Amino acid sequence: MEKAFVKWLGEYFGNNRFEKIGIGDDCAVLNSCGSDLVVTTDTVCEGVHFRSSELTPEQIGRKALAVNLSDLASMGALPRTALVALTLPLSSSTDFAKRLYFGMDALAKKYDIGICGGDTTVWDGQLVLSITAIGLAPVSGAWTIAGAKPGDQIVVTGHFGGSILERHWAFEPRLNFSNQWRQTNGPITACTDASDSLGIDLAKMARASNVGFELDLESIPLSLDSVTLAKTSGKSALQHALTDGEDFELIMAVETEGLSELFEKTKSLEGTGQETRLTRIGEFTTETDLIAASSGSRIPFDPQGFEHSLEGHSG
Amino acid sequence: MEKAFVKWLGEYFGNNRFEKIGIGDDCAVLNSCGSDLVVTTDTVCEGVHFRSSELTPEQIGRKALAVNLSDLASMGALPRTALVALTLPLSSSTDFAKRLYFGMDALAKKYDIGICGGDTTVWDGQLVLSITAIGLAPVSGAWTIAGAKPGDQIVVTGHFGGSILERHWAFEPRLNFSNQWRQTNGPITACTDASDSLGIDLAKMARASNVGFELDLESIPLSLDSVTLAKTSGKSALQHALTDGEDFELIMAVETEGLSELFEKTKSLEGTGQETRLTRIGEFTTETDLIAASSGSRIPFDPQGFEHSLEGHSG
Repeated sequence: MEKAFVKWLGEYFGNNRFEKIGIGDDCAVLNSCGSDLVVTTDTVCEGVHFRSSELTPEQIGRKALAVNLSDLASMGALPRTALVALTLPLSSSTDFAKRLYFGMDALAKKYDIGICGGDTTVWDGQLVLSITAIGLAPVSGAWTIAGAKPGDQIVVTGHFGGSILERHWAFEPRLNFSNQWRQTNGPITACTDASDSLGIDLAKMARASNVGFELDLESIPLSLDSVTLAKTSGKSALQHALTDGEDFELIMAVETEGLSELFEKTKSLEGTGQETRLTRIGEFTTETDLIAASSGSRIPFDPQGFEHSLEGHSG
Repeated sequence: MEKAFVKWLGEYFGNNRFEKIGIGDDCAVLNSCGSDLVVTTDTVCEGVHFRSSELTPEQIGRKALAVNLSDLASMGALPRTALVALTLPLSSSTDFAKRLYFGMDALAKKYDIGICGGDTTVWDGQLVLSITAIGLAPVSGAWTIAGAKPGDQIVVTGHFGGSILERHWAFEPRLNFSNQWRQTNGPITACTDASDSLGIDLAKMARASNVGFELDLESIPLSLDSVTLAKTSGKSALQHALTDGEDFELIMAVETEGLSELFEKTKSLEGTGQETRLTRIGEFTTETDLIAASSGSRIPFDPQGFEHSLEGHSG
């Protein structure tokens, strides 16, 4: 239901005059003098995004803020403050609630973000934690999911797959990378973060931009976790990388002539502890077909059904 | 736990440099060029703020937005847009989710507000609906809860008590009143909305402002609902008015010399369908004691224990 419902929401509400970008992208962008405001809200809840039995309260709090910061990073926005709507089980101790906030705060401090407000409710249900994060758009405007042009290169941060082992709560929102581009978007024409999966979110970008792509399967950066999972899951590491959720890496469209600028600027952070690995994994095309290429063969790419379409392909 | 926890939050987080006002007031205020931004988040959830068996989805959606708009009204802010974090039971139909939004939208349209974004999650729990609302502060700055001065008059909008019968979901956020004061705060020195109860929120304003008050019990505007409830509840209508939650009327501190200006400006809306009844119900004092006066006698006012302290008083 969620996908069709969100589509309906976007059509139903459109944008009002305070909004440059409304429902449908990773964040909304609000008109403002000076830098535009970029706002986003995301919820994590028990049993869907975490299990309290498996994560500490600090890890849950950190994750709830990190998913919002990842959305801001995907718009190129500099995060400034956050509001926290916390719905707590009756059985929760104050210590538990504080530890949720300690987890948020450690990440907030790292990126110089305030927690400016919130609402705490206690109820006869399980933990729900919704955060709204507010940031400032880059000077030349927020990055959107819809800007990819034919011929743009597909570039991603980090590695993909197997986040269920640890990275789904421990991931780093890619703010160090995105905030290098505050004064100019440089060659980045579109950006989103991989929350559903590399395959699904890349396909979303293509659809939103009205382009297709050819994905070079052999260049996709596989996480060690995807390799570990593949030993027992019955899937290949590549399948994990393309279909697993919650990688929270950035997926970008980059103008070909700016590719070297992108890699060089990113390299400048090496050794600072803020470096981000970048990989080119394909190219956007005029034809709107989605193609996966490997060892010289080209097959249609179905992000939802990728596990099946590659069954005879992934040794 | 909630009260002590929110106090801890305010002390722990303080304000960052993007924030003029952080945790502790009805909304946070963010530095911005032009008008300051006023942001707030509030959650309504099953069993605490409503029962799905008693309210339509439209009524639930309306209430979730209205409590946020009431917070903006209490800061004098002009609402501009809202983000919706919706956590839905697995059993919910798309129709149910849409009807929640229809309820929000009817109210949003009335006040020319956009719904700019959100997050929809389906889970194995009950309905939780968190909304973040964003508005623009009055030109001379957002109203706070902490500005009451000794000698200021206590003025309230509307009527109090018995909201459980209907007004807790059908109330009107007092935006028509507050937005009359966009260009100048006029004589209003402090404002909050009555969500916990008239007694509790008025005492909060006194504490935040480091003043006391003398409350004229006979002038408190009793709702018809408080009178209806009193027939069977074992409490007086006055007790309902002072202790019932979710009235969502404004409680203000008003400079004495500006009182007639306040009433006249409010009167100017009469007949437009946007009028708001105002009542003076007491005065803030230099001494920080909280006093309830009635029929010439003065007794200490304990907002939490008011039902007991007036037992011999409310015949």
